[in-house]
Amino acid sequence: MKYSFFNDYSEGAHPNILDALRETNLNQETGYGEDSLSLQAAELIRNKIGNSKAAVHFVSGGTQANLLILTSMMKPYESVISADTGHINTHEAGAVEATGHKIEAIEVQDGKLKSEPIKELVDLHQDEHMTKPKVVFISNSTEVGTIYSRGELEELYHLCQKNNLYLYLDGARLGSALCSPSNDLTLTDICSMTDAFYIGGTKNGALLGEAIVITNTKLQEEFRRLIKQKGALLAKGRIMGIQFLELFKDDLYFNLAKQANEMAIMLNQGIGKLGYKFLTDSPTNQIFPILPNSVIEKLKEMYGFYVWSKVDKNNSSIRLVTSWATKKEAIEDFITDLKSLT
Amino acid sequence: MKYSFFNDYSEGAHPNILDALRETNLNQETGYGEDSLSLQAAELIRNKIGNSKAAVHFVSGGTQANLLILTSMMKPYESVISADTGHINTHEAGAVEATGHKIEAIEVQDGKLKSEPIKELVDLHQDEHMTKPKVVFISNSTEVGTIYSRGELEELYHLCQKNNLYLYLDGARLGSALCSPSNDLTLTDICSMTDAFYIGGTKNGALLGEAIVITNTKLQEEFRRLIKQKGALLAKGRIMGIQFLELFKDDLYFNLAKQANEMAIMLNQGIGKLGYKFLTDSPTNQIFPILPNSVIEKLKEMYGFYVWSKVDKNNSSIRLVTSWATKKEAIEDFITDLKSLT
Amino acid sequence: MKYSFFNDYSEGAHPNILDALRETNLNQETGYGEDSLSLQAAELIRNKIGNSKAAVHFVSGGTQANLLILTSMMKPYESVISADTGHINTHEAGAVEATGHKIEAIEVQDGKLKSEPIKELVDLHQDEHMTKPKVVFISNSTEVGTIYSRGELEELYHLCQKNNLYLYLDGARLGSALCSPSNDLTLTDICSMTDAFYIGGTKNGALLGEAIVITNTKLQEEFRRLIKQKGALLAKGRIMGIQFLELFKDDLYFNLAKQANEMAIMLNQGIGKLGYKFLTDSPTNQIFPILPNSVIEKLKEMYGFYVWSKVDKNNSSIRLVTSWATKKEAIEDFITDLKSLT
Amino acid sequence: MKYSFFNDYSEGAHPNILDALRETNLNQETGYGEDSLSLQAAELIRNKIGNSKAAVHFVSGGTQANLLILTSMMKPYESVISADTGHINTHEAGAVEATGHKIEAIEVQDGKLKSEPIKELVDLHQDEHMTKPKVVFISNSTEVGTIYSRGELEELYHLCQKNNLYLYLDGARLGSALCSPSNDLTLTDICSMTDAFYIGGTKNGALLGEAIVITNTKLQEEFRRLIKQKGALLAKGRIMGIQFLELFKDDLYFNLAKQANEMAIMLNQGIGKLGYKFLTDSPTNQIFPILPNSVIEKLKEMYGFYVWSKVDKNNSSIRLVTSWATKKEAIEDFITDLKSLT
Repeated sequence: MKYSFFNDYSEGAHPNILDALRETNLNQETGYGEDSLSLQAAELIRNKIGNSKAAVHFVSGGTQANLLILTSMMKPYESVISADTGHINTHEAGAVEATGHKIEAIEVQDGKLKSEPIKELVDLHQDEHMTKPKVVFISNSTEVGTIYSRGELEELYHLCQKNNLYLYLDGARLGSALCSPSNDLTLTDICSMTDAFYIGGTKNGALLGEAIVITNTKLQEEFRRLIKQKGALLAKGRIMGIQFLELFKDDLYFNLAKQANEMAIMLNQGIGKLGYKFLTDSPTNQIFPILPNSVIEKLKEMYGFYVWSKVDKNNSSIRLVTSWATKKEAIEDFITDLKSLT
Repeated sequence: MKYSFFNDYSEGAHPNILDALRETNLNQETGYGEDSLSLQAAELIRNKIGNSKAAVHFVSGGTQANLLILTSMMKPYESVISADTGHINTHEAGAVEATGHKIEAIEVQDGKLKSEPIKELVDLHQDEHMTKPKVVFISNSTEVGTIYSRGELEELYHLCQKNNLYLYLDGARLGSALCSPSNDLTLTDICSMTDAFYIGGTKNGALLGEAIVITNTKLQEEFRRLIKQKGALLAKGRIMGIQFLELFKDDLYFNLAKQANEMAIMLNQGIGKLGYKFLTDSPTNQIFPILPNSVIEKLKEMYGFYVWSKVDKNNSSIRLVTSWATKKEAIEDFITDLKSLT
Repeated sequence: MKYSFFNDYSEGAHPNILDALRETNLNQETGYGEDSLSLQAAELIRNKIGNSKAAVHFVSGGTQANLLILTSMMKPYESVISADTGHINTHEAGAVEATGHKIEAIEVQDGKLKSEPIKELVDLHQDEHMTKPKVVFISNSTEVGTIYSRGELEELYHLCQKNNLYLYLDGARLGSALCSPSNDLTLTDICSMTDAFYIGGTKNGALLGEAIVITNTKLQEEFRRLIKQKGALLAKGRIMGIQFLELFKDDLYFNLAKQANEMAIMLNQGIGKLGYKFLTDSPTNQIFPILPNSVIEKLKEMYGFYVWSKVDKNNSSIRLVTSWATKKEAIEDFITDLKSLT
Repeated sequence: MKYSFFNDYSEGAHPNILDALRETNLNQETGYGEDSLSLQAAELIRNKIGNSKAAVHFVSGGTQANLLILTSMMKPYESVISADTGHINTHEAGAVEATGHKIEAIEVQDGKLKSEPIKELVDLHQDEHMTKPKVVFISNSTEVGTIYSRGELEELYHLCQKNNLYLYLDGARLGSALCSPSNDLTLTDICSMTDAFYIGGTKNGALLGEAIVITNTKLQEEFRRLIKQKGALLAKGRIMGIQFLELFKDDLYFNLAKQANEMAIMLNQGIGKLGYKFLTDSPTNQIFPILPNSVIEKLKEMYGFYVWSKVDKNNSSIRLVTSWATKKEAIEDFITDLKSLT
């Protein structure tokens, strides 16, 4: 295989992170996330988002972050609203349901929730024989590469405030979203217009680690007990603190995301020039070109990627993902090879 | 603080592990534990335990390993039997109950389960208004530093076989147990006399990682879906594979455990020579000397450790833990300081 | 209000049942469903369905029956497939999810599941990051009054057998379904083509009580412990035994269902003659006429019923339910009043 | 068998209840507990306890009441403290754990919790790796027949208030407790010194039914959704309303309890006069005489009862339960037969 575009976690970590691990390796630190490095990293993140009261916790993956935050937000009879394409509704093996809660899936085309169908669902569920919706779950960037605008987030947030719903944002690929050319959101916006969100590290240069940020102070109480209960409290929590310190101290996090986006844009433009269309209008590091099935078969022999969905009898969309580690040469090769197959 | 004896996860990882991380860092690997490094590490472990049919999975912590394995073993009305001092019964914030299952705690003095009270409990629970015991949970070494002999494990295993119970061994500190001078068990014994166990990495030189070994083939099916559902499937699973490869390729795992034990023995003998008694007869890397409260207060100003339990009005037991990274000088200092306080 | 067509549980029980309660009242019986009356009733049902190995349990309601049976069928990562209109997916307040399992909802028009979309869903869920479908849930009659034919059930059952899925039938209104003029299924058919089902008593003449029938012997083990755990084991289980004895000893169950159906047919024909259409083609005791909103408003002043769904700007469907206790006069009045509003 | 002393639910219901069922049988009522009879019964109970803001819900059994109330009181990491003999800890097949919560069992001799060990447990659980105790569960009368005095309840309630714990009282046999000669508690006391409790109907003359009373208004919200979710919302909720109306309109509830207690006292005195001791000092309708095993064997041929516990090599305690339906003759026969065996 020439190159894998399967995902943005095919490589290890940015070298700075490995250096930091080595430098701090023999320091004796307190366990379970109360080490000096994690405490510093949390403080650094609070500064970046401009909210000194936010609680910051590091966990090792996105499914873990999602199930922890959602569990902390709902009573047994409450449910979470998600786009039908939402990660929690598709690729988390029923993690949310395993904590006892229903996901109310709303059909969408571009991965994004709009306020109108949420409102209808909430109205319908006044019936006490139904679950009571309590949380709106969104991803930014979404599972199909699209992003929310400031106006869109604002509309959702106002709807949630008005209907006594929490708004939670899954930021597995938040770096790519915020560094996209079409983005008009800031970390501070997200912080002030959600009740909780997480900043994804694993898909943007870390070995592992997602930074959960809980801005709604009512949701902060005893969150560490929940982390412990779900098996998500690492004994050597320092590993995640170290990484987020590196990622946020000199904007490495955003630089890596920009690099991933640039590679995606290059790939996008190259494919577009060959006359192909895309499944969604993605300004981030996941793109979904639509190609003839025969071309896909041949590309598969050279590159790694997922076939995403059937578009019609002869064509399918594929998913190509770039990362901070993707090299320009890989993009050029792919375009050249695609051209020769066209 | 001169030195922390709080636990065996105060430092980072053995340097070989950091080297291996660096060497493999930019290789593109498959995600979610299906990378070449994890596959090799699993194969290496199957060889070490002499069981080619065992399923091996890597997860990031002990609570996670425990809740995953126990969940896979029980139907909703089934329960797990544990010593009252068992980690699942005390320090996992209700992780097992959160998956819906009762822990049947049996009072013990030395951290170890015996067959007689298990048998009585099983008999009592024939009553269908009670939970039905299905798993026996043991730790080796135990939470109070003691270890199971071959004969003791055999007796438990036969009891389990006879009563249609699974036997599961928590090996958070399995290295220290197997490398203790009084040990007569081998990895192969454990493999043939349990249905599942895990080999702890975090407390024996890894950054993070526990190797779950499922020997009962009936319990192997779809275990990865369970790992995913509980948020325990790391996107960059390679990190754990790399570490277990390092730990097991040249017996580094056992060498590190021996070193931790030697430091504990030295500490144990030094304290014993000063005339102090111990709460339990621990041949592993956790020891529990009983000291006057006044002495404990002064030691606390110099060393990190937990006060474990009140013994009488004037005396308490403390827990001292050594690791592969503990230096001889720290032990010597501690003994010298204790002597001057005696 | 002249008459309530809200549901088929507005009245108490058939008088024979009250008589039987009185006659047996002071007999001392064993508790928790092991009384002589429940044992006889279970045996009677086994005879009726022609399966001497079926396990029969009585519980007090449909949601309880559903959550118990489904819980007994699934491992933590497994899910149940249902029509989007299925009772478990809409009006059980998240009962199934509260036991930890996802419901995979398939959009349908007539309340009935077909094999094709089930097959597609199962294929898609080969992905181990998704839940694993394990049960197909159907209702007969469905939530919109339709029924399964013998051929349809057979097709589903074969699909399930081939794909290692359980087939479970919710029979809250099984009497009405089996006694419908268009029905070609028998209790024996259902027994041989499902893994479990329940025979609804509450909606067909009982005070309370549903008879769970588990035909797949692998699913029978320790089911009483599960009933106890979910709070569904009545101390005076005799109450349910008595009722099912009455309902099944002289085919009272079927006679009551026929009576309910006859009233529905009369209502259906009367409304049809006035020129109105129906949302579904229901041959059972729930019918869904489509009426102008203005007519509905006026009917509401005289009769009890639910407005079911908006059909277009000016028209909605309503749900009218008849029961064994519905009187011919109520039907005649309704038709007369509707006529005068038309 | 001459007579069964197995339990207080061997017979059906008090005849008045059967009469009331018949009288109201054909009235059309709203479903799911919103019928006029249930609403009246709830109001009647609010009057009896002197609290117009209490929420009253009827469910069909004690395990159901316990799991519903406890679930509504706890966040995922919280736990409930119970005597080790508490019903939730022994004979509910893990119902509470199945909702995800640990039961912290405290060893007791007389079935009653005292404040000192609760305080110790709460202090120990400050450790965030442990569950956080949130509810104190007590039964009155207890599982071994004893009762709480006003002073004892007050002490527990103050402890709970001070430590931010809820106090919940299981009143499966509350009638017998309150009507005991040694009792100094009133329904009003219980109402003002607990956050929730239930008044048991099943064991005191009803066919089925327990009245949950939630006095803490913070716990009242959306409780009906929870009842629905757990399968505990009866379609014909009227059945329970009717019964509690009968039981409370003319103090029938207390008269039946007194009658049961009188029979127990008679049995107690008769056995005591023969020189036998008792396991506990029970002033209620369950008594636990200690008898020679040889005598027990012979009694078993004539009477129904449970052997409760082994006292020494030759003697065991048995449990004898009386009810509103127990006849004086049965007591006299038992004493006579025991005398002849002595």
